[in-house]
Amino acid sequence: MNPHLFAVILAGGKGERFWPLSTSSRPKQFLSVVGNKPLLAAAVDRLGGFIPPRNVFIITRAELVAATRKVAPKVPAANIIGEPVGRDTAAAIALGAALVKARDPRGIFCVLTADHLIGDIPLFHRTLQACAEVAVRDGALVTIGIKPSTPDTGYGYIEAGRGGFKKGAARFFKAKRFVEKPDLATARKYVASGRFYWNSGMFVWSVDGLEKAMLRHAPELAALMQRFEKVAGTSRLAGALNRIYPKLPKISIDYALMEKADNIVMAGGVFKWDDVGSWTALEQHIRKGADGNFVIGDCRGLASSGNIVVSEKRLTALVGVRDLVVVQASGVTLVCNKHSAQDIKKLVEKLRSLGKYDEVL
Amino acid sequence: MNPHLFAVILAGGKGERFWPLSTSSRPKQFLSVVGNKPLLAAAVDRLGGFIPPRNVFIITRAELVAATRKVAPKVPAANIIGEPVGRDTAAAIALGAALVKARDPRGIFCVLTADHLIGDIPLFHRTLQACAEVAVRDGALVTIGIKPSTPDTGYGYIEAGRGGFKKGAARFFKAKRFVEKPDLATARKYVASGRFYWNSGMFVWSVDGLEKAMLRHAPELAALMQRFEKVAGTSRLAGALNRIYPKLPKISIDYALMEKADNIVMAGGVFKWDDVGSWTALEQHIRKGADGNFVIGDCRGLASSGNIVVSEKRLTALVGVRDLVVVQASGVTLVCNKHSAQDIKKLVEKLRSLGKYDEVL
Repeated sequence: MNPHLFAVILAGGKGERFWPLSTSSRPKQFLSVVGNKPLLAAAVDRLGGFIPPRNVFIITRAELVAATRKVAPKVPAANIIGEPVGRDTAAAIALGAALVKARDPRGIFCVLTADHLIGDIPLFHRTLQACAEVAVRDGALVTIGIKPSTPDTGYGYIEAGRGGFKKGAARFFKAKRFVEKPDLATARKYVASGRFYWNSGMFVWSVDGLEKAMLRHAPELAALMQRFEKVAGTSRLAGALNRIYPKLPKISIDYALMEKADNIVMAGGVFKWDDVGSWTALEQHIRKGADGNFVIGDCRGLASSGNIVVSEKRLTALVGVRDLVVVQASGVTLVCNKHSAQDIKKLVEKLRSLGKYDEVL
Repeated sequence: MNPHLFAVILAGGKGERFWPLSTSSRPKQFLSVVGNKPLLAAAVDRLGGFIPPRNVFIITRAELVAATRKVAPKVPAANIIGEPVGRDTAAAIALGAALVKARDPRGIFCVLTADHLIGDIPLFHRTLQACAEVAVRDGALVTIGIKPSTPDTGYGYIEAGRGGFKKGAARFFKAKRFVEKPDLATARKYVASGRFYWNSGMFVWSVDGLEKAMLRHAPELAALMQRFEKVAGTSRLAGALNRIYPKLPKISIDYALMEKADNIVMAGGVFKWDDVGSWTALEQHIRKGADGNFVIGDCRGLASSGNIVVSEKRLTALVGVRDLVVVQASGVTLVCNKHSAQDIKKLVEKLRSLGKYDEVL
């Protein structure tokens, strides 16, 4: 294990995609519908043997700190930091950089997600290892792309430049272009070209390389990092977060830095990766029952198939329905067309705006 | 009010069509989803001013007697009779005939249903009045047909003979033929012909006329009536029912008597009548909400319309779904295609056969 290697796990999810099973107070990273433990616990555990828990930071929402400590008991309590308000990834990464730098000015850190699934852990470790080496050697900002297995329209894509180089377990390319979620025809073209990768939201960089890029392309972020650095690892951190965070703009690291920086390198990840982005992802992870439905809990049907049902505390009965998502949780029943699963977020927003459903959101 | 006039309300429903809101212990006649009181209470109340409560008998399942007394408090407790097991309409009508005859050998009685809706009560009364007059004058078995407003495939039909005669508020025809639920094309032909009526399951006859018809065409039913007659109105009734009922065949009055008798007259009912035969019937009785769904309780939707939702104790959330029936009741959630509502009975049977769902059936 490289003693300079750290992980910053971003765990601030809002719990909208898996609503009503996920809610604001129990977002996706706490769910274990996929796999046998909460996604966040899996995210920590899969670093085992590669980054020691004392080098793992988890940045979450302040109100989730206690629950996060329970789910990740091996991570030192002081390494689990609560943001008083959500300010997207730029602020969280500046905070993470400060936390790492306070511990090790020569630190290198992997920005990882709390609610994705990764298969082939040894290959994942070897990929991160190679990323770390490239990040140190070239001072590069390394972003991890995933070799796409399907023309998925739920992901953003990264276009790799031609050529590239091999380092350790991974092949690296110049990141030529980041593109938003495409339509199906475009996604098919991307996959067929062989030059597009899924944008995983994972990064690897050295504190030094990141800070230099910030100073050049996003000086406000560098200044923010320096403010956090003064209090990182001290008892003044919480107070500083409470003062600083509310005034920050909500901005992602992609917009704040990556779109401007010129030393971005994409690692072509070939380990299995799934962002478990909506209810329909469960079809990949639960076994289809004899009646053709994907069921967690108690469901009985007649002439019904292709449905995804989560019903752990009551019976769900289906008659003559296909391709629905039916979820019983948090005292709510969701009935959703499988092809509209991405719109659940909109419904949650609508309910939030009505004011009277806060306890189930 | 004609003092010889009685009503026998058949209230032995099994609660399968409106499952899971209706259950075996709370069948449809106890529901008030349509109208502002339980259907059975409405069935009793609509006789007000026409047949006094003391002349109203209700035949129900033994386990529902207590609940029936609560819902129909004006009907004397002794007039509410529980069958120890269900044996279809032939047995219940023979029992009803015995109860009426024990009170009034010159009695005339209307066999009425407990879980249908009827509009225009004065016209309903005048129709029953005319039926009673025809039943007494001609010794006829009068069955009430309903002039169809749509080619409904959920009803059986009665073909009226040509000609007929007018008596009081109704026109009467020879009942030429009873037909089972037709397909849509056939139902359309029926309605277009003007000679077919919905089979309402209501009858009017004198005790004397009915007994004579039984003696000639269904002597086993006449014998049954005579056995009941000996104990009707006495404390020995319950014991006799417990002895006699379990041995009776399950047979409807249509098969046992009506198909054989030759003095059946159909009254052409023109009052509004609805058997509220499945969840989809609610569309006629609840106001469609601004979002295009028919809702009782708490439902919020996005891009969802034409759904029928009953959700009184929890929130039902819809995303991108159309023409579903979603019902939350009895600790169960039903999600049913609107066009499959008739199959709910089959699902209930399937659940019953599994043995582990009895408390929600």
